[in-house]
Amino acid sequence: MGQENLSFVLQKPGAVTFEPRPTPTLTDPFSVIVNVKWTGICGSDVHYWVHGAIGQFIVKAPMVLGHESSGVVTEVGSQVKSLKVGDRVAMEPGIPCRRCVRCKDGKYNLCPDMRFAATPPYDGTLCKFYSLPEDFCYKLPENVSLEEGALVEPLSVGVHITRQANVQPGNSIVVFGAGPVGLLCMAVAKAFGATKIVAVDINEERLKFAKKYAATHTIVSQKESAQDAAQRITSDCDLGSGADVVIDASGAEPAIQTSIHVLRVGGTYVQGGMGKADITFPIGAMCAKELNVKGSFRYGGGDYALAVELIATGRVDVKELITGKVKFTEAEKAFAEVKAAKGIKTLIEGVEDSS
Amino acid sequence: MGQENLSFVLQKPGAVTFEPRPTPTLTDPFSVIVNVKWTGICGSDVHYWVHGAIGQFIVKAPMVLGHESSGVVTEVGSQVKSLKVGDRVAMEPGIPCRRCVRCKDGKYNLCPDMRFAATPPYDGTLCKFYSLPEDFCYKLPENVSLEEGALVEPLSVGVHITRQANVQPGNSIVVFGAGPVGLLCMAVAKAFGATKIVAVDINEERLKFAKKYAATHTIVSQKESAQDAAQRITSDCDLGSGADVVIDASGAEPAIQTSIHVLRVGGTYVQGGMGKADITFPIGAMCAKELNVKGSFRYGGGDYALAVELIATGRVDVKELITGKVKFTEAEKAFAEVKAAKGIKTLIEGVEDSS
Amino acid sequence: MGQENLSFVLQKPGAVTFEPRPTPTLTDPFSVIVNVKWTGICGSDVHYWVHGAIGQFIVKAPMVLGHESSGVVTEVGSQVKSLKVGDRVAMEPGIPCRRCVRCKDGKYNLCPDMRFAATPPYDGTLCKFYSLPEDFCYKLPENVSLEEGALVEPLSVGVHITRQANVQPGNSIVVFGAGPVGLLCMAVAKAFGATKIVAVDINEERLKFAKKYAATHTIVSQKESAQDAAQRITSDCDLGSGADVVIDASGAEPAIQTSIHVLRVGGTYVQGGMGKADITFPIGAMCAKELNVKGSFRYGGGDYALAVELIATGRVDVKELITGKVKFTEAEKAFAEVKAAKGIKTLIEGVEDSS
Amino acid sequence: MGQENLSFVLQKPGAVTFEPRPTPTLTDPFSVIVNVKWTGICGSDVHYWVHGAIGQFIVKAPMVLGHESSGVVTEVGSQVKSLKVGDRVAMEPGIPCRRCVRCKDGKYNLCPDMRFAATPPYDGTLCKFYSLPEDFCYKLPENVSLEEGALVEPLSVGVHITRQANVQPGNSIVVFGAGPVGLLCMAVAKAFGATKIVAVDINEERLKFAKKYAATHTIVSQKESAQDAAQRITSDCDLGSGADVVIDASGAEPAIQTSIHVLRVGGTYVQGGMGKADITFPIGAMCAKELNVKGSFRYGGGDYALAVELIATGRVDVKELITGKVKFTEAEKAFAEVKAAKGIKTLIEGVEDSS
Repeated sequence: MGQENLSFVLQKPGAVTFEPRPTPTLTDPFSVIVNVKWTGICGSDVHYWVHGAIGQFIVKAPMVLGHESSGVVTEVGSQVKSLKVGDRVAMEPGIPCRRCVRCKDGKYNLCPDMRFAATPPYDGTLCKFYSLPEDFCYKLPENVSLEEGALVEPLSVGVHITRQANVQPGNSIVVFGAGPVGLLCMAVAKAFGATKIVAVDINEERLKFAKKYAATHTIVSQKESAQDAAQRITSDCDLGSGADVVIDASGAEPAIQTSIHVLRVGGTYVQGGMGKADITFPIGAMCAKELNVKGSFRYGGGDYALAVELIATGRVDVKELITGKVKFTEAEKAFAEVKAAKGIKTLIEGVEDSS
Repeated sequence: MGQENLSFVLQKPGAVTFEPRPTPTLTDPFSVIVNVKWTGICGSDVHYWVHGAIGQFIVKAPMVLGHESSGVVTEVGSQVKSLKVGDRVAMEPGIPCRRCVRCKDGKYNLCPDMRFAATPPYDGTLCKFYSLPEDFCYKLPENVSLEEGALVEPLSVGVHITRQANVQPGNSIVVFGAGPVGLLCMAVAKAFGATKIVAVDINEERLKFAKKYAATHTIVSQKESAQDAAQRITSDCDLGSGADVVIDASGAEPAIQTSIHVLRVGGTYVQGGMGKADITFPIGAMCAKELNVKGSFRYGGGDYALAVELIATGRVDVKELITGKVKFTEAEKAFAEVKAAKGIKTLIEGVEDSS
Repeated sequence: MGQENLSFVLQKPGAVTFEPRPTPTLTDPFSVIVNVKWTGICGSDVHYWVHGAIGQFIVKAPMVLGHESSGVVTEVGSQVKSLKVGDRVAMEPGIPCRRCVRCKDGKYNLCPDMRFAATPPYDGTLCKFYSLPEDFCYKLPENVSLEEGALVEPLSVGVHITRQANVQPGNSIVVFGAGPVGLLCMAVAKAFGATKIVAVDINEERLKFAKKYAATHTIVSQKESAQDAAQRITSDCDLGSGADVVIDASGAEPAIQTSIHVLRVGGTYVQGGMGKADITFPIGAMCAKELNVKGSFRYGGGDYALAVELIATGRVDVKELITGKVKFTEAEKAFAEVKAAKGIKTLIEGVEDSS
Repeated sequence: MGQENLSFVLQKPGAVTFEPRPTPTLTDPFSVIVNVKWTGICGSDVHYWVHGAIGQFIVKAPMVLGHESSGVVTEVGSQVKSLKVGDRVAMEPGIPCRRCVRCKDGKYNLCPDMRFAATPPYDGTLCKFYSLPEDFCYKLPENVSLEEGALVEPLSVGVHITRQANVQPGNSIVVFGAGPVGLLCMAVAKAFGATKIVAVDINEERLKFAKKYAATHTIVSQKESAQDAAQRITSDCDLGSGADVVIDASGAEPAIQTSIHVLRVGGTYVQGGMGKADITFPIGAMCAKELNVKGSFRYGGGDYALAVELIATGRVDVKELITGKVKFTEAEKAFAEVKAAKGIKTLIEGVEDSS
């Protein structure tokens, strides 16, 4: 298919095809074309694959999947200054309008006109060539591989959550959920100077990994009241009057309830994992302890750049999270593995040059 | 009873007595004795009166009620510099330990060793003489009356909530609940520069007052879904993509749910009213809109001083809220009126000099 | 000259001409064309007129002057949604790149690729038609006149300075310099809730105006040491242990020195007026009092919108500052008046329709 | 001398004696008595020793020197809960009033009634027994030695400066001055996640140590203009458009001037070193770049606790800075060494038990 742009397309829930699409061309002087080299898969990709929708975002027409990618620049617009052909880059997959109040206020992740890869109706990055503005491509330093480059996206999610949590050096932090995002939040919290990092999960294998990776303490979830769970975590991990910060990367209702009870007065909670739209929430404790409760949505100004820096300086190791790699033509296998919760992160290789 | 310290004492739920208690003496060189002149009553006072407890705070021994007071200084410790006998003061009723991490971090309202008037086991201010540290008495400027001085306490609650909400000039704000605290939050938000102030309540009389007092728009609560209510408020009040800030001063579950839906992305919600310990909460919307959700507990550094300043400079009018006054010996009547939601604020006069 | 774009052009220092320039056309779907109606003149305009340069910004080719303008929309791009032909707008005159780290971090005023009207090499707004992106035009509410619209620019300067100063309700603030920017800072500080506002100037007429306009206290500058001046201001204005905030809108070395000494420990100083590049500065006092010292450069996210809101809601009155109006063909007269410090603000009318 | 309290007393500039003083007793139930074990010496101690004064603080009566100490608890007040006899502690040497606006606002380092060890008229810690409130003693974890405990004081200075600088993960930072405070700022900045740390000094030996200790780049100061120096640092250390943060720990005028020029737009400068009261300062660049310039004074809420935590978790190594130890009776030698800039940190051992 030569220079054609082979793409991995979701036709309808559960049905995917490989099809050639037109190769993108430079439509503005600040854009570049990237030859995609590695793409990771996350829960939201799988959700579209299985259900064809996430909340109000519904796949109504065939859509290319994928949004965690790295690649090599193959063409640059006339005004591009920071990149040249051959540069290896991490690709930030959501392009805001740059014109609205949120964009100009430094919160472009909240732009209502965001065009985000593999969020309908916008095509994703599981294709051979993808076009991006120069400033949404982050040049990888020599000591960062393209495989690591594909992990910059989930690491940016972790950076954004941890920044929302305002983690300060010396803080104690509890992270619910030891999947990829939870693990990366732990690693980022450690890089930000947190000194006590508690991982909570039902899966003991994951906790074993978390302990080796970034956690200082681990707690296996049990059937018990939220107050009892909070009391057990506080006591087992010697958290004194409670944790400074809690991040939920599980989306599980009992985890969220326990979070509020495990925090010290004046502590901060960030909801990093998506789950049910409505849950039973201990608002009385939230009020009396004067907590800060925050959402976290994707990533914004500086998150991608910091993620690259954390990898480059060795403060966060993302290589350890890569537990599998598949060829582009086996992309569906990666989706199946994430769905089955096999391994931590499976990467899909880019389209082979001969194809 | 001469210099004896006549006090209004809760013996057990529903049972109150007037009894002479020992007149306090100066126990440290930084303390003063205040002759209490006016005391307001709030929902928490009534709750103790009726139920003998609020959550974990249980009245186990007879306790003097009252914590919203003003008075005249009758004696000062040897190290007191800013006050002299005869000064009229607003009395901040919660004394923190001054030694814990929270106190030294500027959040003394979160001190675990707080001694708060009329929160068991600490006696309240409905007595003739009360002892306070100098720095918890705020001298009233000449143009502020002692009656207004008793309103400094609820106004400080409103100041603290509005500060927690980080209300900025130009903000749009929705306040649920047009009782005393809600009204004061509206007034403070106006003084802080909010330009659109929406009052929401089920009581149309209260809304009429709110509109005259500080609100720019009013909305009558209806039976409808939280999303519908949010949509109706946004549209009726021309809030564009949603409100910048929402304060709940009602504690009502539907109000809290509507609050989350009526906020713009990145907006701030403060829980100012106590209600049920657990509610159904739209956490998905909170996360996707990256909201800031905060508790607010009493008041702390600078709140009382700012409340006095807001009254003294005419930015907040508290006189309008005083809808009744009773003699000390009729104190129970004030409790009954608050319980019956009669008027906005009833004040209890201090013990008469001859008594 | 019909639709031709009559412009007021600086040819070289001191030499201006009126000349027809090409009428701008829509070059992008998000742009609009504005028929300029009123333009104010500030010190920087005059500086270019007299010296042909400000610091490193040197007028090397003929340049249209003016950047404080309002006008009426005459044409809109195909993607413009918030504006239509006939809308009256305040025109924000600096367009950032929207792509750099500063822009995406919410600080577009610090964009290194800013294209600012009447800052070489970019033409200004003293012409008949001017092109702007939709989002840099702010629709004026019905109760705000086009004359007031031209004052939105200097008011935005005041808003930005006052925001940099983090003025909080109840603060005491000292403003050095009672020219247009200083006066507007006082008015904004008042709208932000400052309760003590001290104006300092050498010109007693200006101070008289400041007192009537927004200041609560005025101080006439004298020849004395910075410490003595600070002591005098503190004592005359009853500032206790010092002012919470000081804004310098004078650029004068003695004012800056006095500022540092008049602040309380932990207070905030903002440099709002440009003066000498290097001055003698009391760094020891700055350090020992742990002050926050900040620059302020133009205006950014939200400043223009808030300025319009402050005028529309009556919180800041800019009409009082308009002390003269001249025809477009008499534009040079306005420059001469500003140079001579005659009046507060002179406006230049737009090109007449018949011209 | 038995239980007598042997002390090292400054009689007048340059004249010191060893003399027995009364052993302190518990004067309040929250106090403890500490047997001082190690004390470090800093520039301010030496300044009092040589000049008998620092600015407005003048030694008018004999005063015990020393304020960087650790020791062992020998007696505890009746209300003390967190400490017991035998506990090893770092001693925070400045006790605020706990009652003023600054104290209650979380800025107790700015308390005007601070009683600070070895700042006239308050005696210092170079004695056998010293009394402190419980909450100003920080229990050392088992893996932290008493020698390290004496370094908690200068490390807290570095923590406070670095917090004032708001150092964020990924930041580039330049530190002027590679003496003890500068070195500790570098180490703290590294622990806070700064990825580029530039040390600037005139002394190449110190820079060699800094590079080994915490700096990523070093620059030898030269005779050149501030702009040239800034340009050289930016270029040699690849700082792009400038450093995010600059800390001056030198107090030298050329360093301060260079700092302002080496910062990027919107960057932050903290004055950590005391020098001349007035200097020539590039205020024009500060304003146009909209910098944040801050003082830093001692340490406050949380600084000491974080310093202990940074040592205990191995994030900051203070042992490397200890370059000499002397007996109590040789205390003057330690002063002479600091005065001669010999080594980095000399510790004075506590009074021997037999003495």
